[in-house]
Amino acid sequence: MANHTKLSVDSSALAGITREPFPKSKKVYVSGTRFPELKVPMREVTQAPTRHANGKITENAPIRLYDTSGPFTDPSLAIDLRRGVPVVRDWVSKRSDVEQLDGSSSEFARARLADPRLAALRFELDRKPLRAKAGKNVSQLHAARRGEITPEMEFIALRENQKLASSRVQHPGESFGASIPKEFTAEFVRDEVARGRAIIPANINHPECEPMIIGRNFLVKINANLGNSAVSSSIEEEVEKMVWSIRWGADTVMDLSTGPNIHETREWILRNCPVPVGTVPLYQALEKVGGKAEELTWELYRDTLIEQAEQGVDYFTIHAGLRLPFIPLTAKRVTGIVSRGGSIMARWCLAHHQESFLYTRFDEICEIMKAYDVSFSLGDGLRPGSIADANDEAQFAELETLGELTKIAWKHDVQTMIEGPGHVPMQLIRENMTKQLEVCGEAPFYTLGPLTTDIAPGYDHITSGIGAAMIGWYGTAMLCYVTPKEHLGLPDKEDVRVGVVTYKLAAHAADLAKGHPGAQSRDDALSKARFEFRWEDQFNLSLDPMKAKEFHDQTLPAEGAKTAHFCSMCGPKFCSMSITEDVRAMAEKGMAEKSNEFREGGREVYAAEPVTSPAAERR
Amino acid sequence: MANHTKLSVDSSALAGITREPFPKSKKVYVSGTRFPELKVPMREVTQAPTRHANGKITENAPIRLYDTSGPFTDPSLAIDLRRGVPVVRDWVSKRSDVEQLDGSSSEFARARLADPRLAALRFELDRKPLRAKAGKNVSQLHAARRGEITPEMEFIALRENQKLASSRVQHPGESFGASIPKEFTAEFVRDEVARGRAIIPANINHPECEPMIIGRNFLVKINANLGNSAVSSSIEEEVEKMVWSIRWGADTVMDLSTGPNIHETREWILRNCPVPVGTVPLYQALEKVGGKAEELTWELYRDTLIEQAEQGVDYFTIHAGLRLPFIPLTAKRVTGIVSRGGSIMARWCLAHHQESFLYTRFDEICEIMKAYDVSFSLGDGLRPGSIADANDEAQFAELETLGELTKIAWKHDVQTMIEGPGHVPMQLIRENMTKQLEVCGEAPFYTLGPLTTDIAPGYDHITSGIGAAMIGWYGTAMLCYVTPKEHLGLPDKEDVRVGVVTYKLAAHAADLAKGHPGAQSRDDALSKARFEFRWEDQFNLSLDPMKAKEFHDQTLPAEGAKTAHFCSMCGPKFCSMSITEDVRAMAEKGMAEKSNEFREGGREVYAAEPVTSPAAERR
Repeated sequence: MANHTKLSVDSSALAGITREPFPKSKKVYVSGTRFPELKVPMREVTQAPTRHANGKITENAPIRLYDTSGPFTDPSLAIDLRRGVPVVRDWVSKRSDVEQLDGSSSEFARARLADPRLAALRFELDRKPLRAKAGKNVSQLHAARRGEITPEMEFIALRENQKLASSRVQHPGESFGASIPKEFTAEFVRDEVARGRAIIPANINHPECEPMIIGRNFLVKINANLGNSAVSSSIEEEVEKMVWSIRWGADTVMDLSTGPNIHETREWILRNCPVPVGTVPLYQALEKVGGKAEELTWELYRDTLIEQAEQGVDYFTIHAGLRLPFIPLTAKRVTGIVSRGGSIMARWCLAHHQESFLYTRFDEICEIMKAYDVSFSLGDGLRPGSIADANDEAQFAELETLGELTKIAWKHDVQTMIEGPGHVPMQLIRENMTKQLEVCGEAPFYTLGPLTTDIAPGYDHITSGIGAAMIGWYGTAMLCYVTPKEHLGLPDKEDVRVGVVTYKLAAHAADLAKGHPGAQSRDDALSKARFEFRWEDQFNLSLDPMKAKEFHDQTLPAEGAKTAHFCSMCGPKFCSMSITEDVRAMAEKGMAEKSNEFREGGREVYAAEPVTSPAAERR
Repeated sequence: MANHTKLSVDSSALAGITREPFPKSKKVYVSGTRFPELKVPMREVTQAPTRHANGKITENAPIRLYDTSGPFTDPSLAIDLRRGVPVVRDWVSKRSDVEQLDGSSSEFARARLADPRLAALRFELDRKPLRAKAGKNVSQLHAARRGEITPEMEFIALRENQKLASSRVQHPGESFGASIPKEFTAEFVRDEVARGRAIIPANINHPECEPMIIGRNFLVKINANLGNSAVSSSIEEEVEKMVWSIRWGADTVMDLSTGPNIHETREWILRNCPVPVGTVPLYQALEKVGGKAEELTWELYRDTLIEQAEQGVDYFTIHAGLRLPFIPLTAKRVTGIVSRGGSIMARWCLAHHQESFLYTRFDEICEIMKAYDVSFSLGDGLRPGSIADANDEAQFAELETLGELTKIAWKHDVQTMIEGPGHVPMQLIRENMTKQLEVCGEAPFYTLGPLTTDIAPGYDHITSGIGAAMIGWYGTAMLCYVTPKEHLGLPDKEDVRVGVVTYKLAAHAADLAKGHPGAQSRDDALSKARFEFRWEDQFNLSLDPMKAKEFHDQTLPAEGAKTAHFCSMCGPKFCSMSITEDVRAMAEKGMAEKSNEFREGGREVYAAEPVTSPAAERR
């Protein structure tokens, strides 16, 4: 456990950040057409050739993968965390609709900057915040609706449009009414943003961010939660956790810090973060009033929004749908209100016997959002915390309110997504998606799981991974990860890795099921490698190459085993893939004459192409 | 790695078997009505009382759970693994339709018994096999169709009918045409077996087995695979793995040994195993011909069936649906034939250019099955080994053949279930279930996952847990577990634990979704404990109490933290459940006057009942 009152950042800890590229992977950059200066990062995995039984050798093309890991996995870049990662969106500061401020407009931020005790803790780079010029709206939604294609949009089109060389046709998807194109263009991106069906979280004060999109007609995204708490963690650990989670595939991170030095921790994260960062501003606001929810005020909350917007937070979770009249609806629940933001606001509403200021001041909040292009993530403060409470009146009353608020946000041209549950048994998941699409006009859904049973603490990455894959298939645009420590403790690095990989596989399962173009190529390449006993390629194409290799080596550690045409599951004699290989070989030499009768309809026993194979499931 | 040529069993290793009951759990036995001598085992978990904010204390009733762990978790029983566990089905040997043989009818088994080199390896208890008298059929299906309710059927009714005191109504299920009753009776069990819609794997030579049922209208079951291989494991390890897997909840185990001393290993497992044991007899048959598939003969295979049936194997995987003409259909696949049994038979068929003897001799196989009440698990030798190959012509051609064979088995009154895939993307899973129900007349489906993507070796318990939960919901009766080592290596004990728990949670998620009566009680009890900060109860009610406690203690190890009204995720000040508690307390004292307007419609702000709460998901 870290020292809570530590007031300096340890540079040597920062120097130890994880930077090695994945095995046989290199970073490549694709240029834009409209914006030739764009450098869209991808990860390219090279493969070994196929060695056929007849001695022939055929090459296997490199596979390009969507890459969230940012500059950290590019060995050609020198990175000093104290100076932040390179700016990607250098066009933002040149926009005619933004102006640079002399310093933060937030009282709180100015007070922190003036406090000499924080000197050793502070991120030192001098950066002046940007803001929309008076009367301007700098949101991507505003641009999209004017018909403008931004550099962010072309960046995203290139990124989503996985240019994978796949000769195979993939299974058609079942997309539940989504409109996934065969190819992603910048114009398609613009159109989806304009319709509110996708958002590009891209605060003008976060130029380090590589643009990405969240919407049901794009790849399903995942979020990883970070953040210290009163009992644990330091700035160094949080920065390392951020780098670690994007390494494994987190598309966005949320800084949910509730411990000390939230302002400074966030600055360190943002300046080093190539993915969008979300926060729940209410947490910091509550810290500012010593944890007493009753003492929260609109003025203090407003200052917190501005403080964070000017630091560069890309999306804010705001629980504006939890209205005073909905609170009694939770009375009969098994688990009441489990959302922290929700319970804080419920307490405030009851103490003041007033409607939530997040709801009554919603227009004012929109004004702030559009001055920096912060996106809404409208929070589900009344989400169910148990199977018993799923899909109840309280939950859906709030969801309907989020639908109303979405329409208000859209009037302001503010980008908006909607948060969803929670704990939901499988047969009730679909209703969540259907209702959200209907009442929120297809604004992107961003769900936490859902967990499909309550009985497996310690395995809630899995109980929720099941629900996440399903709701992703049904149309959820982003899945908030759950780690094995959910309900029990704070995740450590290994938990973050397991949580992120679990959610990547769930998101990918959803992409396959929806029929995202090219999604199956990675499965096909990995399975072909497996069948051909190209063990290293199988590891390298997997979501977690190190774990795959480690597991293989636990049973067969010898280097030779990784080129062997068998594996430990069945041993050399009983290998089903090896037998298949022999069957194919028999078919090739001479079976032609012997087996004419089962070549009916012009079918060949085995085509000449794939030749070998590794053992998979028993039975 | 074990010594391959070891020819003795280490008693001290056997003595170290895991026997502690789970925390706060005790074994209870429920008696029968028709058969009062039945002792149906259940696990009862006691809970701490609820301490209300006003000082009142209310009790929480103990929770009864389905218990697969057998006598091992009953501390009142002395168990000597060298003598086997106590006989449960002592009525079997008294049946008038069975006769005791002088010794095994299998040549191979007699030869093993006569081999003095195997003395130190052999399970020593002298046991004479039972067989149906000439012309008799001893299967549960035969009894059921004659209208007879067997002791096994009443045992199962009591076991399935989870008598859980739940005051809450649970969510209605969506069961896709299943016929789940509100209460399970012996007559319902008989009827389901008679229709072929459920099986009771219960070889008359496995009296140690506690009866259980596999069918879509019952709790979803899971299977764990064990077994040595040429490169790894010993008898002691396999027995320990069996005890370990039923401890975590495996409903059946399959002994898939392909290494040395298969016959003796199986005897040790069976004599100590309180759950049904399945095998793939083809594996041992292949060992008998030195691994040369071409040399397999019907006579040798037949002797192997008899050998294993007289030892007590409860179900046989038989790949009789893989016919010669289907082999060419796999030629264009990415991963050919991945089933080991399937590839062995494909090789035999091609080598002999003949139809599979498993298919041509199917009636003769049925005669053997009914003489011992061995159930069929008709194998899917052509299941897809990759996403690309899912739901293809080869797979479905075989499935249709399995449907034909089911009808033949049913003519013989032989119990039958059907094995299913494999690797299937989510949008194609439902088709598997629908087609299986249709062509196999609702015979129970027993699937391996399915894995919903190929890209996550090392996490395939999760890629497949997703598919397993879904197909269980759709109607699959038993799920074959997949461990994290799938495709990579042999599972160790920790992998078995993770695999079993993952599949238990998937099966339970399916039970909830189907609406199994009482299934939600455990979720409700655990969530109530969580909300009331009864940490120990939360751990004890979970599928893996030790892991839950271990994870909690990693962040907050102090004993006091387990009674604290907060946890490490949010710390004392920010705990949402704690805030909810305060909200309820405020509501109780005096909010009555202040908040009349949001008590519209007679709703109370908070009912008096639940009072406290633990922090769950952030955000």
